[in-house]
Amino acid sequence: MSTPLRLFYASGACSLAPHIALEESGAPFEPVRVDMASGEQRMPKYLRINPKGRVPALAVDDWVLTENPAILQFIARSFPEANLWPQDLRDQARVVEWLGWIASTVHVAYAHVRRAERYADSEAALAEVRAKGMQTCRELWQAVDARLGAGPWAIGERYTVADAYLLVFWTWGRGSVLGFDMAREFPDWTAHARRMATRPAVQRAFEREGLTLPPDA
Amino acid sequence: MSTPLRLFYASGACSLAPHIALEESGAPFEPVRVDMASGEQRMPKYLRINPKGRVPALAVDDWVLTENPAILQFIARSFPEANLWPQDLRDQARVVEWLGWIASTVHVAYAHVRRAERYADSEAALAEVRAKGMQTCRELWQAVDARLGAGPWAIGERYTVADAYLLVFWTWGRGSVLGFDMAREFPDWTAHARRMATRPAVQRAFEREGLTLPPDA
Repeated sequence: MSTPLRLFYASGACSLAPHIALEESGAPFEPVRVDMASGEQRMPKYLRINPKGRVPALAVDDWVLTENPAILQFIARSFPEANLWPQDLRDQARVVEWLGWIASTVHVAYAHVRRAERYADSEAALAEVRAKGMQTCRELWQAVDARLGAGPWAIGERYTVADAYLLVFWTWGRGSVLGFDMAREFPDWTAHARRMATRPAVQRAFEREGLTLPPDA
Repeated sequence: MSTPLRLFYASGACSLAPHIALEESGAPFEPVRVDMASGEQRMPKYLRINPKGRVPALAVDDWVLTENPAILQFIARSFPEANLWPQDLRDQARVVEWLGWIASTVHVAYAHVRRAERYADSEAALAEVRAKGMQTCRELWQAVDARLGAGPWAIGERYTVADAYLLVFWTWGRGSVLGFDMAREFPDWTAHARRMATRPAVQRAFEREGLTLPPDA
């Protein structure tokens, strides 16, 4: 590619997944931090890049891509030498299935706890949405844990961008919004997170975002 | 492929998209109807196929794929001669972006109106979730209409599986849950739906599902 990719990310947001993927790719890229605490993602300057007002966004010159499943697949396919995408069509389908399920179900469940105001207005209804979201998250976090099993990676023996995406939700699980005891409640997922933490690309992305790596065993 | 693909679908559900894609592919496939009115999707026989209890599911022998973005991409890539997937990597990314956005945002907004019980419990909170979901749907339906513009297809000049996926939500827009006046409120999307209705593959899928085609101009 002629000019480097620019990744618009916010610390600890789901943009962590393409951040890791770009570090894995070995390609030069420009990380552009968006300060969500001050609402930068809803300001005109950023809305000109991504009218959806969300991170991540990936830009090459004035070509902008949004939606994590699309960004992750694009990074993986743009840099085949990094081996972030399987060769076999069925394995690819399994990666796309993980990406789709995480985006449409796992992430959305979290949003009901963290961003309940998207779904209701009154305090009473917001509290219900959050409580139900919390319950759904626990069920989904269990489903991820069960589906991962011994892994070692999301689709089995092969590391892919789906693993980077999963790590986002492991970090959200330990965060204050959900407050799960990840190691005790979701041991297989935590083992996966620990494997992730040994990867230099993951370490670089965590350091740049100011995040704490998953603990060693 | 050795044995034909089996598509588990329900009439009028979002499985309409892969149903159309399979008809477009020209490949033999076995449509397997799941009766959601009687809750067949939550019965042991179906849960053995798709433990998520949802449609669509696509099966080849005992290999089962779920999640519309994964199923649609898999169908398109499995039958390249049907030209349901672009060649260029950026165009592909644009299709994946549509699929991801529809699944994680457009479909989810509809679920807040149609399946509010997933997100709250009390009657008062359910009513709020539905009302807010209705408002979000209208905004998103407008966003789809604006993004489609003159098209003629989702990514421009080339027909892809994203177009089949979009047609699902056009039909949901005219349905009793949302009750939008599609032609008046969303003219570009309705023009798209009318283009879709001229395709024999779309006509066959609609006929099998017992649905009414989008009206002519």
